[in-house]
Amino acid sequence: MAYFSDVSKIAYEGPKSRNPLAFKYYNPSEVVAGKTMAEHLRFAVSYWHTLTLQGNDPFGLPNMIRPWDGYTGMDLAKKRVEATFEFLEKMDVSMFCFHDRDIAPEGDTLRETNKNLDVIVSMIQDYMKTSGKKLLWNTANMFSNPRFVHGAASSPYADVFAFAAAQVKKGLEVAVELGAQNYVFWGGREGYETLLNTDMKLEQDNLARLFSMACDYADEIGFKGQFLLEPKPKEPTKHQYDFDAATTISFLQTHGLADRFKLNIEANHATLAGHTFEHELYVSRIHNMLGSVDANQGDPLLGWDTDEFPTDMYSTTLAMYQILKNGGLHSGGLNFDAKVRRASMTPIDLFYGHIVGMDSFARGLKVAAKLIEDKVFDNVIEERYSSYREGVGKDIVDGKATLKSLEAYIIDKPVAVTTSGRQELLLSILNQYLLEA
Amino acid sequence: MAYFSDVSKIAYEGPKSRNPLAFKYYNPSEVVAGKTMAEHLRFAVSYWHTLTLQGNDPFGLPNMIRPWDGYTGMDLAKKRVEATFEFLEKMDVSMFCFHDRDIAPEGDTLRETNKNLDVIVSMIQDYMKTSGKKLLWNTANMFSNPRFVHGAASSPYADVFAFAAAQVKKGLEVAVELGAQNYVFWGGREGYETLLNTDMKLEQDNLARLFSMACDYADEIGFKGQFLLEPKPKEPTKHQYDFDAATTISFLQTHGLADRFKLNIEANHATLAGHTFEHELYVSRIHNMLGSVDANQGDPLLGWDTDEFPTDMYSTTLAMYQILKNGGLHSGGLNFDAKVRRASMTPIDLFYGHIVGMDSFARGLKVAAKLIEDKVFDNVIEERYSSYREGVGKDIVDGKATLKSLEAYIIDKPVAVTTSGRQELLLSILNQYLLEA
Amino acid sequence: MAYFSDVSKIAYEGPKSRNPLAFKYYNPSEVVAGKTMAEHLRFAVSYWHTLTLQGNDPFGLPNMIRPWDGYTGMDLAKKRVEATFEFLEKMDVSMFCFHDRDIAPEGDTLRETNKNLDVIVSMIQDYMKTSGKKLLWNTANMFSNPRFVHGAASSPYADVFAFAAAQVKKGLEVAVELGAQNYVFWGGREGYETLLNTDMKLEQDNLARLFSMACDYADEIGFKGQFLLEPKPKEPTKHQYDFDAATTISFLQTHGLADRFKLNIEANHATLAGHTFEHELYVSRIHNMLGSVDANQGDPLLGWDTDEFPTDMYSTTLAMYQILKNGGLHSGGLNFDAKVRRASMTPIDLFYGHIVGMDSFARGLKVAAKLIEDKVFDNVIEERYSSYREGVGKDIVDGKATLKSLEAYIIDKPVAVTTSGRQELLLSILNQYLLEA
Amino acid sequence: MAYFSDVSKIAYEGPKSRNPLAFKYYNPSEVVAGKTMAEHLRFAVSYWHTLTLQGNDPFGLPNMIRPWDGYTGMDLAKKRVEATFEFLEKMDVSMFCFHDRDIAPEGDTLRETNKNLDVIVSMIQDYMKTSGKKLLWNTANMFSNPRFVHGAASSPYADVFAFAAAQVKKGLEVAVELGAQNYVFWGGREGYETLLNTDMKLEQDNLARLFSMACDYADEIGFKGQFLLEPKPKEPTKHQYDFDAATTISFLQTHGLADRFKLNIEANHATLAGHTFEHELYVSRIHNMLGSVDANQGDPLLGWDTDEFPTDMYSTTLAMYQILKNGGLHSGGLNFDAKVRRASMTPIDLFYGHIVGMDSFARGLKVAAKLIEDKVFDNVIEERYSSYREGVGKDIVDGKATLKSLEAYIIDKPVAVTTSGRQELLLSILNQYLLEA
Repeated sequence: MAYFSDVSKIAYEGPKSRNPLAFKYYNPSEVVAGKTMAEHLRFAVSYWHTLTLQGNDPFGLPNMIRPWDGYTGMDLAKKRVEATFEFLEKMDVSMFCFHDRDIAPEGDTLRETNKNLDVIVSMIQDYMKTSGKKLLWNTANMFSNPRFVHGAASSPYADVFAFAAAQVKKGLEVAVELGAQNYVFWGGREGYETLLNTDMKLEQDNLARLFSMACDYADEIGFKGQFLLEPKPKEPTKHQYDFDAATTISFLQTHGLADRFKLNIEANHATLAGHTFEHELYVSRIHNMLGSVDANQGDPLLGWDTDEFPTDMYSTTLAMYQILKNGGLHSGGLNFDAKVRRASMTPIDLFYGHIVGMDSFARGLKVAAKLIEDKVFDNVIEERYSSYREGVGKDIVDGKATLKSLEAYIIDKPVAVTTSGRQELLLSILNQYLLEA
Repeated sequence: MAYFSDVSKIAYEGPKSRNPLAFKYYNPSEVVAGKTMAEHLRFAVSYWHTLTLQGNDPFGLPNMIRPWDGYTGMDLAKKRVEATFEFLEKMDVSMFCFHDRDIAPEGDTLRETNKNLDVIVSMIQDYMKTSGKKLLWNTANMFSNPRFVHGAASSPYADVFAFAAAQVKKGLEVAVELGAQNYVFWGGREGYETLLNTDMKLEQDNLARLFSMACDYADEIGFKGQFLLEPKPKEPTKHQYDFDAATTISFLQTHGLADRFKLNIEANHATLAGHTFEHELYVSRIHNMLGSVDANQGDPLLGWDTDEFPTDMYSTTLAMYQILKNGGLHSGGLNFDAKVRRASMTPIDLFYGHIVGMDSFARGLKVAAKLIEDKVFDNVIEERYSSYREGVGKDIVDGKATLKSLEAYIIDKPVAVTTSGRQELLLSILNQYLLEA
Repeated sequence: MAYFSDVSKIAYEGPKSRNPLAFKYYNPSEVVAGKTMAEHLRFAVSYWHTLTLQGNDPFGLPNMIRPWDGYTGMDLAKKRVEATFEFLEKMDVSMFCFHDRDIAPEGDTLRETNKNLDVIVSMIQDYMKTSGKKLLWNTANMFSNPRFVHGAASSPYADVFAFAAAQVKKGLEVAVELGAQNYVFWGGREGYETLLNTDMKLEQDNLARLFSMACDYADEIGFKGQFLLEPKPKEPTKHQYDFDAATTISFLQTHGLADRFKLNIEANHATLAGHTFEHELYVSRIHNMLGSVDANQGDPLLGWDTDEFPTDMYSTTLAMYQILKNGGLHSGGLNFDAKVRRASMTPIDLFYGHIVGMDSFARGLKVAAKLIEDKVFDNVIEERYSSYREGVGKDIVDGKATLKSLEAYIIDKPVAVTTSGRQELLLSILNQYLLEA
Repeated sequence: MAYFSDVSKIAYEGPKSRNPLAFKYYNPSEVVAGKTMAEHLRFAVSYWHTLTLQGNDPFGLPNMIRPWDGYTGMDLAKKRVEATFEFLEKMDVSMFCFHDRDIAPEGDTLRETNKNLDVIVSMIQDYMKTSGKKLLWNTANMFSNPRFVHGAASSPYADVFAFAAAQVKKGLEVAVELGAQNYVFWGGREGYETLLNTDMKLEQDNLARLFSMACDYADEIGFKGQFLLEPKPKEPTKHQYDFDAATTISFLQTHGLADRFKLNIEANHATLAGHTFEHELYVSRIHNMLGSVDANQGDPLLGWDTDEFPTDMYSTTLAMYQILKNGGLHSGGLNFDAKVRRASMTPIDLFYGHIVGMDSFARGLKVAAKLIEDKVFDNVIEERYSSYREGVGKDIVDGKATLKSLEAYIIDKPVAVTTSGRQELLLSILNQYLLEA
């Protein structure tokens, strides 16, 4: 444990602390709304950003300075495992997530690749035992290798589908082996570049076929975790099939998969699709589909997935509000699918990134819990929709009204609406809670 | 018939014509792909833009100069009916569409409003008989009146729901009376301004309740037309529930309404939602949900619904391609939900707008038909996905493959994809067809 | 003074107050960074949104309920003046802003219009004397009347230019009469709908000609206020000439007007142009062009000018940071070019909107002042750019370096950059200051 | 010459040709508006996309299949030179463009890097002599190497500035050696990631200092080419200083550089900044700043620089219209800063990409020339602004009018504007010309 030697362990020192390597708001043992912060905020470190990322962007070469630089191949893979658990320990995070290819390099055939994977999975398993850290979810990277250039399950080439299917099979086995609490599908290139050469129906049907096979195999091998599907509207492809929560729900409904899947909602993917983060959480929640969260943020003025660490406390508050209303994330968690900026290339920046992310969610949790405890918005809503709890409103909700009965009721009654929605007042109250909770 | 005295009738004069008041590409009797252009392109004039619009925008007062200016109330309503049928005749368009409030002014109660409506509907009925013009669809305006400020069926106030329901009842009766081929719902304010005061689930459930009541009443009074729901992502509200085709399909599936509704796809609403027009048509088509089209275009650099007349022949070609693949629009049509720019304030501009719109779709039809006849993209797609018609691919499609069988097949097989998607070549061919078809 | 009888006067009751009609953070007499909050935050009420607005939007009819409803013409205009001063008094705001047409109705000719204006200006002058309230700026509405459909100074029609010029002349006279501290130009329709019919150079030259004439006339009549030009990228036109701060500066430089004008920066216009609010303030500041501010906010997911009351304390903090760095706004101020949402239709919502706006800026002021006092970012920047204060860096800044001298210096020297920009840490500190300042 | 053995040479075979490896519209020797197409359309191949690009994107590994795969270092660099000239010959393109790092690999110091560069430059020089091909422009890549992570001339570190300066020095020497017709600056990372750590003024001043030094050195060594500065709003940084044409002009004016620089306008950068391509060309033209063009296109629904080959003939027509109005591009040209899609990974796709690009511009040239020859828009504009050629309008333009004189003229004159802008008609005519020219 010497990768991050300039950090001993991040501790809670409270808001007035000027120690940049301390939590200000996240205090894992503090009880909020009946549970500890650590129980509410099931944080996870994402392997790809924190361990594997090298800082390259479309206009720049790799520039990250990492203590495991200099190693390659399986040696590098092993060093990263060691660093992962040191990082989890020092950050006081109990979970992590990975794609198969984050943790071990590919070989010439899938058999060889799987051998590499087995070595690292076994090593991870040992570390998990001794450390008590957990795997929130794993997934298969079916977008980086050139074979996936036209998609994986939605590839026009059956061999690519087969390869993807075999990757998923292995992924589920790894999930069982490591006790993953969920298994995620993110359709990295499941979409299209141009409709001119695309059979959208076959591609979407094939995507569903892969998911069905995965469900069957999960049952066969006794994987009990939750399946999660992660919406994203675009990038890397021009159009990704799982555009947003509603589209993904529609896809699952159309293909009879709605009972087996929930959604993994990412903040930055929400905004790329034209929605707020809380909107996507809300839509998922009322469809009983809120499974887990990729906790990051985008830049509203940029059109690509910037995957920034979450720092906007308005957003973390409104997200935690939805999560609390959902009764928590259950087997899901808050995975930091977030990367330090390319200009933050030193190891210590990985800590700063996670600190601000965890603090922002901790603050959001407390504010949201107080808003719910005080019934700030609940009272507004209860009053606002009260006409549906009696009389004609109750008839409507109870299915007793018809167009005819409603016409008879209203035909001679002037209807003017002079009740304000009070948006400005509600935003004012939100500000006070944000500052004072 | 003297409203548009400077126009006798728009005729087809062909591409070399320099008469600005003539079709260049739209020739109603020309046969394309086995039907006349007029049969393929079931154009409709939208009452609200062409007859009712006054040119005001958020920064400007009404400025349109219309031959019916100077009249008010029911007199104005009657003049507009006369002008409508003159316009349809001179433009050689066989159909029209309206909201209830476009054609007749409101009274103090719904009863009075309905009386006004009856007078005008009766007048329209007479004109339809003598002219042979048809009603593509009608709908209820449940967004302009201040009572709908918080929504109609999704209003927090049951009286507003009742009012909306009664409007729909009358709308269906008018639809029967005038033989409307479809009945449209566009959720003008069915959405939210802020989640802080919103019960999204109740609002969406209530929306579904209204649609169910409408289906029941349609059955009761024998309305045989198609119900259509029109997606739009935002404006006037911050977020509209029927965001896009996939969201709307999800909503219909969730509430058991998918069998009774199809979608009315608008080009400008597609781009506001982050999709191409053809994407939304394609998504609707493969769900057997493509009902009708609001034919307009947006400005990709502007973030509001500009409702421009369609002029982009790439877009009309790719739209007609989807429509032809759908076997046409059946009871649907191409409604010009399009308005002349505010700076095009003279009556003759209404003709120029419809001419360029109809010509653009006529050209698009011919190009699309030729692309299909020559199997330009069909051949590419047939070849591209051919691996799913035999061997392991066929097993996948036939549901015979499992993760295990696919792993066994692929575990030692290198899979490299070196087949190009040929996007640049396909776009080059599209350009040639656009120019040469 | 009975328009807002349910409000006596907004007072400071501090953050723990649960009285919705009180300031929580704005305390006019509290001293921050050497001046009172009231001196820093020169708030102004905008006549058009708060007095004149009726709530209509492109899909909805007027719905605002105002105590002066029921009056028309000059009577209405007078009631609004009375209400304005009552509102200013109760809100504890010392300044206001208006367009000529906000305060008085138009007549058939400019002469008649000016007569109406004179009556109201005289009435306003009396109220200003007794109340001590000030006019932050006035301007001419040269976009609402249909004559401005193609632009005002950029109109293709010389008579329209002449009309606009005469409006500006009167506007300057009013400015002198009422002691306006600034005179604003916002090019409501100075832009284009389509380049196909536009002579961009003549239009921009004419725009500059109007500004030159205005400068000359201001000198002639002794107007000492600051001229301000307000950038906006689009809406109502497809493209407005004064797109953003840099474009507007370029325009002023090209036409020799840079010495006479500063900019009026609006938050929502910044984001519509693809910039943050603080970016536009910063660009203006380093060009010595920061004149005044239209304090509002947009919705980053909507593409039109929503003109919301400012509530985002991140934005108000970063804005006040730039303003403090500018040594304040001098003759400028913070004008609430902001409107209550259409769903906030009651008079009391006008108070809630201004309260949240003023509180948000007050909080932003305190946080920004503390950040500056503690040199939080200044120290970072001083250290970060320190290499330009000595050696080769100093030579570069002093103009002593050449490509040759720099090549000689660097040709054999490896240059690696391993110093982090610390973005995540800085955002973490910003959050702490926001909550704890 | 065996890199592209499946292509002999692209020839003009005309629109009806179905040979995918032939020009349909581009016929270099065809005379249009007094010059050959080849003289109008000074096409250039961009080295980085066509020779150096490997297909990787933020989610995918390199996948391009190039005949020079398998070589590395200087060997690879030499193979690419050979392939470049074969490609230019077979594509019938007479010019090319490169960054220093596209053509030769970096060494450990600048001295070593320059040695590598010298070898390849010398080789290129030989090929240029024998082939007659020309260098449209060269530039320095000051954004890929990790040392430029915080900017080059705008870096906080003087050594990085010095390194950049030395690169520019070498770049100018190469420009002289190879007879480059222009020298380009694109500020790859000249911008900021966060304002919290940024001294915007020092950074912009330093940027200007580099440009001044470059001008001095160009004079010293007799470089006669045109300096070009290329706007781009964002990516890779959050905000690039040369946001768009107007911003860049403002920057040049502010720093006294406007006489030495023109702009290199890129289509995709225009749309990322919220402008049409033709807008940016028009703005540049009327400031006498239109220097050269990066010919590509973006996807209006995607928020990053997709750098697609230009295929939209509306855009190429309106671009060529501006270029013809500019009297051509003079020393500039049409550089295909465009890459084949990642899914177009075979060598032949490079030809398809250039064919559709050149054909699209050829068609655009012909349509634009015909529009100008027929004075289609010129007549509209002449008529539309005619009021400025006599009477009060002439006084305005001649600087003889004042606010007073204009008020006297207009004070009693009703001014109504009832002349349409005819946008729909003009777009209809544009369509006809596009199809029939």
